[in-house]
Amino acid sequence: MRIQTVDWKNNKIKIVDQTKLPARFEHIYINELKKLWRAIKIMQVRGAPALGAVAGLGVYLGIRSSRAANFSELEKELDGVIEYIGSSRPTAKNLFWGLKRMKNAALANKHLELTKIKQALLKEAKNIIEEDKKSSRSIGRFGAKLIKGGDKVLTICNAGILATIDYGTALALIYRAKEEGKHLKVFACETRPLLQGARLTAWELKKKGIDVTLICDNTAAALMQQGLIDKVIAGADRIAFNGDTANKIGTFNLAILCKYHKIPFYIAAPASTFDLSIHSGKGIPIEERPPQEVSRILLKAPVAAQGVKIFNPAFDITPHHLITAIITDRGIIRTPYKKNIAGVIGGLK
Amino acid sequence: MRIQTVDWKNNKIKIVDQTKLPARFEHIYINELKKLWRAIKIMQVRGAPALGAVAGLGVYLGIRSSRAANFSELEKELDGVIEYIGSSRPTAKNLFWGLKRMKNAALANKHLELTKIKQALLKEAKNIIEEDKKSSRSIGRFGAKLIKGGDKVLTICNAGILATIDYGTALALIYRAKEEGKHLKVFACETRPLLQGARLTAWELKKKGIDVTLICDNTAAALMQQGLIDKVIAGADRIAFNGDTANKIGTFNLAILCKYHKIPFYIAAPASTFDLSIHSGKGIPIEERPPQEVSRILLKAPVAAQGVKIFNPAFDITPHHLITAIITDRGIIRTPYKKNIAGVIGGLK
Repeated sequence: MRIQTVDWKNNKIKIVDQTKLPARFEHIYINELKKLWRAIKIMQVRGAPALGAVAGLGVYLGIRSSRAANFSELEKELDGVIEYIGSSRPTAKNLFWGLKRMKNAALANKHLELTKIKQALLKEAKNIIEEDKKSSRSIGRFGAKLIKGGDKVLTICNAGILATIDYGTALALIYRAKEEGKHLKVFACETRPLLQGARLTAWELKKKGIDVTLICDNTAAALMQQGLIDKVIAGADRIAFNGDTANKIGTFNLAILCKYHKIPFYIAAPASTFDLSIHSGKGIPIEERPPQEVSRILLKAPVAAQGVKIFNPAFDITPHHLITAIITDRGIIRTPYKKNIAGVIGGLK
Repeated sequence: MRIQTVDWKNNKIKIVDQTKLPARFEHIYINELKKLWRAIKIMQVRGAPALGAVAGLGVYLGIRSSRAANFSELEKELDGVIEYIGSSRPTAKNLFWGLKRMKNAALANKHLELTKIKQALLKEAKNIIEEDKKSSRSIGRFGAKLIKGGDKVLTICNAGILATIDYGTALALIYRAKEEGKHLKVFACETRPLLQGARLTAWELKKKGIDVTLICDNTAAALMQQGLIDKVIAGADRIAFNGDTANKIGTFNLAILCKYHKIPFYIAAPASTFDLSIHSGKGIPIEERPPQEVSRILLKAPVAAQGVKIFNPAFDITPHHLITAIITDRGIIRTPYKKNIAGVIGGLK
């Protein structure tokens, strides 16, 4: 079974509806901007690299019917579209990276006539998709070197096929290691509140024939204590210049457990997840999501005492000193992070 | 609103049905042993001290209609009843403590005629209830000394009124501190898989007018990082001779987070939770519960990929070196634990 999370089909954005998984594997077609904004907000599409891809297609969607008379008018519309899409999820760097790429593509082609600019934008959005496919495979190739046959790997949230176009970031290592003939055992944290681990990671790993066991997030420490975890691999939503990493709430927790148990803790993400304009994790905005995600499981069954206050941040910040290495599509980055991130991602040697 | 978790009414065990909370506050009446076994198993009644109380009443329930001709016959029946009740939940020490107390009460009265022995057993069961009320208040009194006005306290699972007869263990400190005029802020971990924090702790703290905020278990580390937690207090299901403590899965996790953030981590439990026959945490049996608790939230809505393997241990072991102090009904126990547990609990000076 081939899964492509984000695609451009029949002049529409085609995405796997991740709110329906694992019960149903369904696609939805998006041909207007408001529908895309909502799809990102309610996480029908999620995962940092996948958001970069829909950002690109979304910008094209937003301006393809533009009646602008000149580039200046088009640019104004473009900026409006970019701001609107960017308001859907503040933490994911790739979303803004994708939007910025589209803006740059427009600027690079401003001398062309407007229909050509539009075509150039669609091409750029498709390039993002194709590049992500390659990028995921590079992450897998670099990262699989860290994986030994027989390893027991713990992961959180979903940093797999469903978070990218078709191969994953953290899970790309797993897929690649399997292709290399290494037998692995994966433990998936269910990842409250939205249960991406239970719904998405367990689903896709099982589909791909990987030995996966689901646990409550609370169980990670006990597994490590019993020697059942050899390494932890997580994705990232934004990585600061010093290596501090924003990822799904609970990631920082796992990094501390790894330090205590002396287990390697890896982050896997493409270069587009790095935000070199932000010095440390303190500068990363943290999205706070609706309390109903906690009080009602998957917004349905109420489980919490009525009217109780709820704090529901979607991400946490793992300080760089807890991260053993960051696996990127350009190679594995280790400490000292500032120097090495500047070199590998910033292009400064 | 007065809440009594376990009571003896109209010749039946009267319990608050904790599977109905927080939607409905309902009592159920239990007059046969099988119904009690199931109530313990599916956690209509739960919490270490409350299990000690139903164990006592359950033994009386099991033998009150006995047609034994002599003590020897009664003892055989009694042992059967005790073994049956004990098979419901293997980790909770108080359950076995309650059962043993009942056996001892029978032996102490073996010279009496059988109806008198039955009466003595009912009296002993009622004594357990009355003693737990006092015990909870002692824990609260000792423990409240550790709480300062303005403290922000994190707790896991439910170690409150609903885990005891009417006052709690970990939450007894909170209730007592409030009675002493200290203003507190409590954060309750929702406590997957069965969400005792969301359903029970948030409910009872709110009923008692305590400022409570519910979080996903994954959020604890981020709160600590932001300086929002001053101390963590958890209950216990069994405490070994060296201080290693079995409690709800996720407790060990919090203890590690506390060590990393240099936050005090306290356990609160009555003397009956200590198992001096077990040298360390390694000897404590860990109950594994049905995978459906994870794959279907509260056994209803399915949330996990179908057929995925699930590991669902109900408890974890917190090693004693991560525990700042153990607050008991006989005083606060600090390191060195072996010596001090022997002194305070074992009566050895």
